[in-house]
Amino acid sequence: MKDLKVTPIRNGTVIDHIECGMALKVLRIINVTGTNVQSPVSVLMHVPSKRQDFKDVVKVEDRELGPKEVDKIALISPRATINIIRDFNVAEKYSVNLPEVVRGIVRCGNPNCITNRNEPVEPEFSVEAKNPPTLRCIYCDRILEDTAEHII
Amino acid sequence: MKDLKVTPIRNGTVIDHIECGMALKVLRIINVTGTNVQSPVSVLMHVPSKRQDFKDVVKVEDRELGPKEVDKIALISPRATINIIRDFNVAEKYSVNLPEVVRGIVRCGNPNCITNRNEPVEPEFSVEAKNPPTLRCIYCDRILEDTAEHII
Repeated sequence: MKDLKVTPIRNGTVIDHIECGMALKVLRIINVTGTNVQSPVSVLMHVPSKRQDFKDVVKVEDRELGPKEVDKIALISPRATINIIRDFNVAEKYSVNLPEVVRGIVRCGNPNCITNRNEPVEPEFSVEAKNPPTLRCIYCDRILEDTAEHII
Repeated sequence: MKDLKVTPIRNGTVIDHIECGMALKVLRIINVTGTNVQSPVSVLMHVPSKRQDFKDVVKVEDRELGPKEVDKIALISPRATINIIRDFNVAEKYSVNLPEVVRGIVRCGNPNCITNRNEPVEPEFSVEAKNPPTLRCIYCDRILEDTAEHII
């Protein structure tokens, strides 16, 4: 069963230490729907981890992530690490890390918030805690609940 | 990057030769939502294949599939193969193969069909072609379009 092995990738990104159960949400964040895939993608769910008990891992070939994608991953997996592979080597490795303020990555949960009223206002939150992420809307002051469900 | 390797599985199922782009639909069919995963699951998308150009592969540990699940996979991937692994060996290997008649795995697309009228009637289709699958409702005689969207 040779074809079961995941071979090393030449260029791409490995998103490691994803919270168990969050891999499919990560795929949604990086816009991997299945039929739009042009390069290999692999997903491991519930694999043993040294650091956590179990983790998920997502590997995408020929892709590097934008800063908004990385911040969205931080919202659902504050301990995730990003490994950028270039020519089979880990060229960069870093932990996701929410900035003090996030813009345009989550929607406010308050339907009356100005950011939900068809005004040209980009949602903006101050990050009050990173793990678990606690976000406060800078417009209506409300703390966001169900953060993962509000990712844009 | 040792933890990127997909190690062989002791017991479980490998769904191989899935049509490219269908892996996430296969996960839905076998009810892997992410958070409900208790054993390792791995998904490969758009990997090179000898038989097809590219394929998807899904491996689930400590799981064997029921006949309805296998028939649903046949609807979206008529060339898929199922490998049942027991104690690290391939104990069984077979191709998915739709029976002449399928019951209770897809809903009829006709909203007026008796099977969609809250009557205690299980949807039933005759299989007129297997690849691509062409299903005819035995109650209203309609040919099902968008089969993948009607999987129960």
